[in-house]
Amino acid sequence: MRNFTYYTPTKVFFGKDTHKQIGQIVEDYGFRKIMVQYGKGSVKATGLYDEVMASLAAHGIEVVECGGVQPNPTLDFVHEAIRIARETEVEMILAVGGGSVIDSCKSTAAGVPYDGDVWDFHSYKASPQAALPVGCILTLSAAGSEMSASAVITNEALCQKRGFGSPFNRCLFAVCNPELTYTVSPYQTACGIVDSMAHTLERYFIPCAPTDLTDRIAESVLHALVGAGKTLMEDPHDYEARATAMWASSVSHNGLTGCGRGDALAVHQLEHALSGEFTAVAHGAGLAVLLPAWARYCYRRDLPRFAQFARRVWDVTAQDDEQAAREGIDAMAAFFKFLGMPTTLREFGVSAAAIDRLCALTTRNGERVIESVVPLDDAAVKAIFESCC
Amino acid sequence: MRNFTYYTPTKVFFGKDTHKQIGQIVEDYGFRKIMVQYGKGSVKATGLYDEVMASLAAHGIEVVECGGVQPNPTLDFVHEAIRIARETEVEMILAVGGGSVIDSCKSTAAGVPYDGDVWDFHSYKASPQAALPVGCILTLSAAGSEMSASAVITNEALCQKRGFGSPFNRCLFAVCNPELTYTVSPYQTACGIVDSMAHTLERYFIPCAPTDLTDRIAESVLHALVGAGKTLMEDPHDYEARATAMWASSVSHNGLTGCGRGDALAVHQLEHALSGEFTAVAHGAGLAVLLPAWARYCYRRDLPRFAQFARRVWDVTAQDDEQAAREGIDAMAAFFKFLGMPTTLREFGVSAAAIDRLCALTTRNGERVIESVVPLDDAAVKAIFESCC
Repeated sequence: MRNFTYYTPTKVFFGKDTHKQIGQIVEDYGFRKIMVQYGKGSVKATGLYDEVMASLAAHGIEVVECGGVQPNPTLDFVHEAIRIARETEVEMILAVGGGSVIDSCKSTAAGVPYDGDVWDFHSYKASPQAALPVGCILTLSAAGSEMSASAVITNEALCQKRGFGSPFNRCLFAVCNPELTYTVSPYQTACGIVDSMAHTLERYFIPCAPTDLTDRIAESVLHALVGAGKTLMEDPHDYEARATAMWASSVSHNGLTGCGRGDALAVHQLEHALSGEFTAVAHGAGLAVLLPAWARYCYRRDLPRFAQFARRVWDVTAQDDEQAAREGIDAMAAFFKFLGMPTTLREFGVSAAAIDRLCALTTRNGERVIESVVPLDDAAVKAIFESCC
Repeated sequence: MRNFTYYTPTKVFFGKDTHKQIGQIVEDYGFRKIMVQYGKGSVKATGLYDEVMASLAAHGIEVVECGGVQPNPTLDFVHEAIRIARETEVEMILAVGGGSVIDSCKSTAAGVPYDGDVWDFHSYKASPQAALPVGCILTLSAAGSEMSASAVITNEALCQKRGFGSPFNRCLFAVCNPELTYTVSPYQTACGIVDSMAHTLERYFIPCAPTDLTDRIAESVLHALVGAGKTLMEDPHDYEARATAMWASSVSHNGLTGCGRGDALAVHQLEHALSGEFTAVAHGAGLAVLLPAWARYCYRRDLPRFAQFARRVWDVTAQDDEQAAREGIDAMAAFFKFLGMPTTLREFGVSAAAIDRLCALTTRNGERVIESVVPLDDAAVKAIFESCC
């Protein structure tokens, strides 16, 4: 087990009707004037927006609206939100939405007290030394941003999608009502299951000394997500499955499944290149294509671990480690397919001609090798992208 | 899944040599003058005390010493510590020790800004509205107090051992170096394994709606603790096992294994009566006697759950739920015995004559019924105590 620091201060209000407490929660923290960010309007269509505003108004909270965050939230939007937040002197930022909205809020919050360009954080030129507090009302189980230390933004001018980690990226609070995800489409639900699984799965395969408890917790999260995914493809209104998917997505990325291992997400680096370049690609769908390809590229380098994954998560019974490992990866790929996920880049309209560009984006023109079961240099990244063309 | 609030803000510095960072950690939080509480001197014998003081001195931290906390920490000691903390105007309290020292610090910290008697909190006459910050350097994997919201103190005048929960009881930080537990005796190591298991196990059996993810995480914690316990009885210096036991004890009581279920610890109520009245009884040893007795009293009321526990934690293969449940309880009892734990109250020198008194203490003279698989009224408590005489 590696040494680690575990810091997950986000206060989570989980369960039915919890979003109706938002005015009380904000008041209890002592905030009087807040910015509210949300997406393209689905929160208005569902009535959530009205409920949130009513609760805030009932507690006398002044609101500065900032709607229109898009999936793969952009740096331009964040710049504008920072300008407004400074001008209006809001005391905190409330995200009403999924990971994109929360990440937009986190980046805004870190940018407000910073003299330079907030992109400095995303490009690792600087680290935040302060940030406005961020809270959220979660509407999508996927990114885990409600409890995570990371924020991902797309710089459209540079065609770069970049995340950075910081304790200042931890939400002060997260309001998580699984019922708010009833209206999420089957496709987006599936993307969320895959993304949630990836956050645990990628940490699970970080090469390191044994971590028995973290392994078992990780397997629990994966097991629960598979079960919830299967149920939700049948019945999107199953409360227990929605609740399991939502809590699992938070636990999967709050640091717990990395304790003693680390938090590096290798396959996410490939996917950020993919959906940064092809912005119509849903992050979870990109991961669903890349995860099996990555696993097939790597598994021979750590057969015992892939075999453990196969046996404990996918109930594979094969005695031989290589056979078990292969069956486990096949079971994972089959599950993603069952969820309705694509299995090739072609299904996104991405041709082999794009691969060199994706490799360059992933390895930053060969400047970095990504830690993984097999270290991912240019050649490895290329081989993985090619294998899922 | 029940609605829940999850709030675990303690920053954990986990791993080898982490205690040597204590001066830097305290300085980073901005504290200049702190109280240090510790126990009966073992921290001096091991050299830990000197290392801690050297690190604090190197960072210019002024220390007010307050040694001599005893196992089952007393209200009298806390009163005196509160007086000293007020007089010296310390800014935070650092516990160097196990759960007893940490709980003493928590109670002291809550008492300092409170006008009344701190026992008001333990007897539920009042709730803390403020507290000094508490940090700890953990030397024993057992109570989970380093991350928990609870603090247990013994009022010797009333012969009462009482815990209370509060967000103010959450440590600001916890320094957890598994190597510091190498010197813990096999008996105390075993007691710690049992106590750690109990925190998860008792939540696991709270009657409520399904909680698939929490179940699996709970089973992971129990599995890991059983494995670590077996290894440590053979080799007390196995780092990975010490690390697993330490991290599991924190996770077991930080709220995670109660998410969607609740945090009521039924068997702990019986044990607090036992070790409150017979102060030589080690808490974990008391639990080792009471847990199987409680399980045998209750299991028929929730056979599917006890059968799940048996199959997933103890690898019982019996098809019949009743048989599986019984085999699971037997396996748990056998494991406690393997750890060298007592199996009867008699081994503590507690005779049948004491049972009425223990019942009265547990149910507070019949004033409360304890939530459990079977609600524990006077008659139930009596039957459980009698069954392990």
